[in-house]
Amino acid sequence: MKSKISIVKIGGNIIDDPYALKTFISDFAKIKHPKILIHGGGKIANRLNEELGIKTVMNEGRRITSAKNLDTVIMVYAGLINKRIVSALQGQECNAIGLSGADANCIQASKRSVHPVDFGWVGDVKSINQSTINLFLREGITPVFCAISHDGNGQLLNTNADTIASEIAISMSNDYDTELIYCFEKSGVLQNVNDDDSIIQKINTKKYLELKTKRIINKGMLPKMENCFHALNNNVSKVIIGNSSVINNDEKCSILTL
Amino acid sequence: MKSKISIVKIGGNIIDDPYALKTFISDFAKIKHPKILIHGGGKIANRLNEELGIKTVMNEGRRITSAKNLDTVIMVYAGLINKRIVSALQGQECNAIGLSGADANCIQASKRSVHPVDFGWVGDVKSINQSTINLFLREGITPVFCAISHDGNGQLLNTNADTIASEIAISMSNDYDTELIYCFEKSGVLQNVNDDDSIIQKINTKKYLELKTKRIINKGMLPKMENCFHALNNNVSKVIIGNSSVINNDEKCSILTL
Repeated sequence: MKSKISIVKIGGNIIDDPYALKTFISDFAKIKHPKILIHGGGKIANRLNEELGIKTVMNEGRRITSAKNLDTVIMVYAGLINKRIVSALQGQECNAIGLSGADANCIQASKRSVHPVDFGWVGDVKSINQSTINLFLREGITPVFCAISHDGNGQLLNTNADTIASEIAISMSNDYDTELIYCFEKSGVLQNVNDDDSIIQKINTKKYLELKTKRIINKGMLPKMENCFHALNNNVSKVIIGNSSVINNDEKCSILTL
Repeated sequence: MKSKISIVKIGGNIIDDPYALKTFISDFAKIKHPKILIHGGGKIANRLNEELGIKTVMNEGRRITSAKNLDTVIMVYAGLINKRIVSALQGQECNAIGLSGADANCIQASKRSVHPVDFGWVGDVKSINQSTINLFLREGITPVFCAISHDGNGQLLNTNADTIASEIAISMSNDYDTELIYCFEKSGVLQNVNDDDSIIQKINTKKYLELKTKRIINKGMLPKMENCFHALNNNVSKVIIGNSSVINNDEKCSILTL
């Protein structure tokens, strides 16, 4: 039987709230089996851009990454947020290592085509360096990834953190029984977006298609759900969507399986 | 016989000059034996502080690291500069990994006492995690360190890059025949500070004391030379001081031995 691994992705709601982040880090550090953390960026990059007079340009909710914007996200994601998380985990006796995709060539990506929309220095994941990530895990080292990848030719690229999490989960499922956990601002996939108690607890492929048809899952949730089922269709055993407490208690969350 | 390792430290004159940095990276990538890079910060952190309206306060040439200043140096050193160097090395087929001292607990430091001068969030190196650095090297991974350490209790600390380089060199000398190379703006230790051709090519302990007595070595060079002889007195075989071309050609530089 394969041993268990948890791939956990946290978003801005945790990163932007010092108390929530502290609680999360303490909970995450306590996970006894192998684990990997992927973090998004939160609002700090936008705030830094504002202070520097750099425009944050969005297209349908997605950031257009100009050269100056790329420098900002490298500083904030790979620098400030990543190292704060790593040092805090070290303080909780979790031997973390902070990584961008360039480090030890962990995540290679291709710059996205400029058609139909030029998103700038944005990359789509091409390959995960499973053997090096595995080496860290075998040595008891916990990888903490920011959402920066590279093209292998010297160019850093801004990359979607949800996608990085699902691609890492898929890659690790060769060797591990893999659980992918998305922590975000809501308690799960909701029947009624305004009622945090209306969690749909179990979602399989059939239920997912039904929820899509009824437009209960739409807008921002659609790409997240696509990532989830992409992972499930590629050997990831289980996907959990919930708030930051799910890594301790999976009673109040959505559990996705095939 | 122990196999050879080169520990190379680069300063602001290389980091702040895109052409010099590109040339250096190409030369460094070509070193065939195990190698470690340590980089300082250059002027980018000061420039970012200026743009953000954060004061850069110095005391006798050394930065006082306020909390805001620490955030800036983490963003610039561990983020922008470190990841730019790592991705550029990856582009030259050198499998680099960027590290702060918090990552995999590589460098622990103690916050410096506030007496006689309160330098703020500055740390003095306490221990180097030789076994993890060795693990990377055995796997053909080249560590690239920025000058940020941690205290093991969740606090990141700004640390002198020259000292990190000498402490890493000392630590690696248990397993390797270790050469420590300081690349800076001049061609070596100069007899006449205004004449870049007046390189003192060979310096041993006796010569060093003589140069100190004659005040040929003074001011900024003194702490650098103290680091060098500290390393030599702790099993490092050779220290080289020169400009960025020394990693290819050690004819025009100063070579320090006991």
